[in-house]
Amino acid sequence: MKKMDYQNVKGTQDYLPEAETVRRKIRRTLEDVFIQYGCKPLETPILNYTELLASKYAGGAEILEEMYTLSDRGGRDLSLRYDLTIPFAKVAAMNPGLKMPFKRYEIGKVFRDGPIKAGRFREFTQCDVDIVGVDSQLAEAELMAMGLEAFRRLGLNVVIQYNNRKLLTGIVEVFGVPADKINKAVLILDKLEKVGIGAVISELSELQVSEAAQRLIERFLTDKDNRSLDYFVPYSRRNELVKKGLEELQELMSVIDYLGIDDRCVFNPFLARGLEIYTGTIYELFLSDGSIKSSIGSGGRYDNAIGGLLGTDETFSTVGISFGLDVIYAAIDGKESATEPALDYFMIPMGTGKEALLLANELRADGYRVECDMSSKKLGKLLDKANKDGVRNVIIIGEDEVKKSRYKTKDMVTGEEKVYSYRFR
Amino acid sequence: MKKMDYQNVKGTQDYLPEAETVRRKIRRTLEDVFIQYGCKPLETPILNYTELLASKYAGGAEILEEMYTLSDRGGRDLSLRYDLTIPFAKVAAMNPGLKMPFKRYEIGKVFRDGPIKAGRFREFTQCDVDIVGVDSQLAEAELMAMGLEAFRRLGLNVVIQYNNRKLLTGIVEVFGVPADKINKAVLILDKLEKVGIGAVISELSELQVSEAAQRLIERFLTDKDNRSLDYFVPYSRRNELVKKGLEELQELMSVIDYLGIDDRCVFNPFLARGLEIYTGTIYELFLSDGSIKSSIGSGGRYDNAIGGLLGTDETFSTVGISFGLDVIYAAIDGKESATEPALDYFMIPMGTGKEALLLANELRADGYRVECDMSSKKLGKLLDKANKDGVRNVIIIGEDEVKKSRYKTKDMVTGEEKVYSYRFR
Repeated sequence: MKKMDYQNVKGTQDYLPEAETVRRKIRRTLEDVFIQYGCKPLETPILNYTELLASKYAGGAEILEEMYTLSDRGGRDLSLRYDLTIPFAKVAAMNPGLKMPFKRYEIGKVFRDGPIKAGRFREFTQCDVDIVGVDSQLAEAELMAMGLEAFRRLGLNVVIQYNNRKLLTGIVEVFGVPADKINKAVLILDKLEKVGIGAVISELSELQVSEAAQRLIERFLTDKDNRSLDYFVPYSRRNELVKKGLEELQELMSVIDYLGIDDRCVFNPFLARGLEIYTGTIYELFLSDGSIKSSIGSGGRYDNAIGGLLGTDETFSTVGISFGLDVIYAAIDGKESATEPALDYFMIPMGTGKEALLLANELRADGYRVECDMSSKKLGKLLDKANKDGVRNVIIIGEDEVKKSRYKTKDMVTGEEKVYSYRFR
Repeated sequence: MKKMDYQNVKGTQDYLPEAETVRRKIRRTLEDVFIQYGCKPLETPILNYTELLASKYAGGAEILEEMYTLSDRGGRDLSLRYDLTIPFAKVAAMNPGLKMPFKRYEIGKVFRDGPIKAGRFREFTQCDVDIVGVDSQLAEAELMAMGLEAFRRLGLNVVIQYNNRKLLTGIVEVFGVPADKINKAVLILDKLEKVGIGAVISELSELQVSEAAQRLIERFLTDKDNRSLDYFVPYSRRNELVKKGLEELQELMSVIDYLGIDDRCVFNPFLARGLEIYTGTIYELFLSDGSIKSSIGSGGRYDNAIGGLLGTDETFSTVGISFGLDVIYAAIDGKESATEPALDYFMIPMGTGKEALLLANELRADGYRVECDMSSKKLGKLLDKANKDGVRNVIIIGEDEVKKSRYKTKDMVTGEEKVYSYRFR
């Protein structure tokens, strides 16, 4: 027989039980928190019409290049979704009867045929929450609090950096960057922490921003006071965007102060987020210990995207937050809390297969997790296996136990044995 | 602006919150039961190399026709998985260090570009358990018991029909069906309940099975005693397959008797299951009330598939069971038990947004599911909404409550009010 060459597709991978147990725990924790925050579950298809995913209000040119396309037996042009936001907007469009505000979560696979780097996959899982229909900054504050609560339960310390896109756009405008270069300039500023002040200024120079503007931006970036909202007050008198951004930030800060999460939320006036769709508050979550440099969650307000996608003049106030399962898994993997034993009992029958299975089924019906050996390996080997799997309690069932209507559990750590009576049939 | 024509791809659909809540419950119930039965989670990619999925030991010609194919930016030939079995076999092949017996579950999306009928989708979710490395019929019995336990927890009464592929193949051989027609004849017999005896015999005649064989099969199908294993004993002396099948069935029956699940397990000597990969025990689960005619779960033993797929001479004893999330959802949808309220509290702030959010977050940290209104709609409308969503308890927070450091919960059914003290900041 020909042996096949088995490989996973580049950019995809299997998660074997040890890894998947941790991932399942992350998924459930996030889902539980989402539900406690009043989010409702939504499930959308992976297969979509290409026309929808390629709409100009969707992911933008970079993402479209990375879209997997195919066609079905009817010759229709299909694509695999690359995020959960467009499918969400589609649901809003298809269901005009949806009650607002609508707050949903979805956890699902998305696909991007992009360059492969460490920790970047072509098939990966996103965990998203979005709220449509709330203007107030309460929505942003709630999602930020929710993110902190989720990571608290996962045993990860995180800090949230936040900013406001209106403020950042406005201040760059004030400094004299022409309208057609503002978006690009904003994305350059976003790189400050990564590349340093020198590289930022030289990129602005390459963008052919005036020298006067470069000097003003340099002063802004190096001013010690730029982390205080007061810094922006004088500019707010000259620029409508700065003014609106400042108001939104003041509202947001008053809520996060009140909620007592201000110690884990840091205003960063240079934060921009890569995507152009954001219109107000933006935030990114990072591990406090810096062990993973990239963000572990992010989001913001994007009030124009759904309306644009639907082709209506209606505004859909929308705020979202997205968590990457794979990066969270990378952060948690190897930590002690990740490795809980998967079983309560490992049952070893000694020529008593069906008797052991009967008892196992009863323990399972009582809520225990029980593995019943069926390999008929030697006792020593099976005890080794139980030890290796970290199963603490073992039950050995021999004919004697069956005859005497009882069974014995053995604690593998303390050696303690307990005897229970049980009527086998 | 141009309004897009929003549609879901043919054969796919969205699950809105009401539906998805039920589906989530089904998924979690199955997962909990799988884990209690000692199954370990596995996650495999949806994207696979076409060469793997199109292997001759994989799904067979019918399924291959329904495979979605595409290529990535590197020009590689990829396909979307059409089941969870081949990816499972791939994992076994790629990880020779995997400890046997290996018992895994996977719940995930699969794709088939097939004809669309009622209740059949092109993108759907399967929930599979497979065990590699157990010869004994204990494995089958355990999976059957597990299926019954899962449906018990889901509130569905099911019955399991079972048979043995060796027995069925052997008896058809004994009746004089030539070797090259046995598989087809077996699949015709499988349709007995659907089409009746007349149609079965006429299909056998079309297959050009001899008239003598047709008469023998007709007698077998109509004999009242054919549901007893004793019926097959005389044939087992003449045919090795009947003998082996009979032994396996006797072993299986002794276990399901002992486990006390024999009242929900029915031997059906004509059951064949569509797929040719099965080599021993086969079973299908049906709703006891017959409200859905198709099976709600199925599986069996397929000892040759993995070895064949891997191109080795090694035998991989394998038993599996698969549940279709969509058909279970169809069975449960609309039942009373499916509609639990999604929230413990609906909180209505009266100009007290951040105070309400603070209290909501504390209740959430205590484990409650709380939705905090941010729409600023009128009180009457919000109470209507709470009623409609089936939320039993409402908390209204006005300035008076904040000032007096307290809040009130109102039970919407009994009208009962309770006051709690709470220090707002």
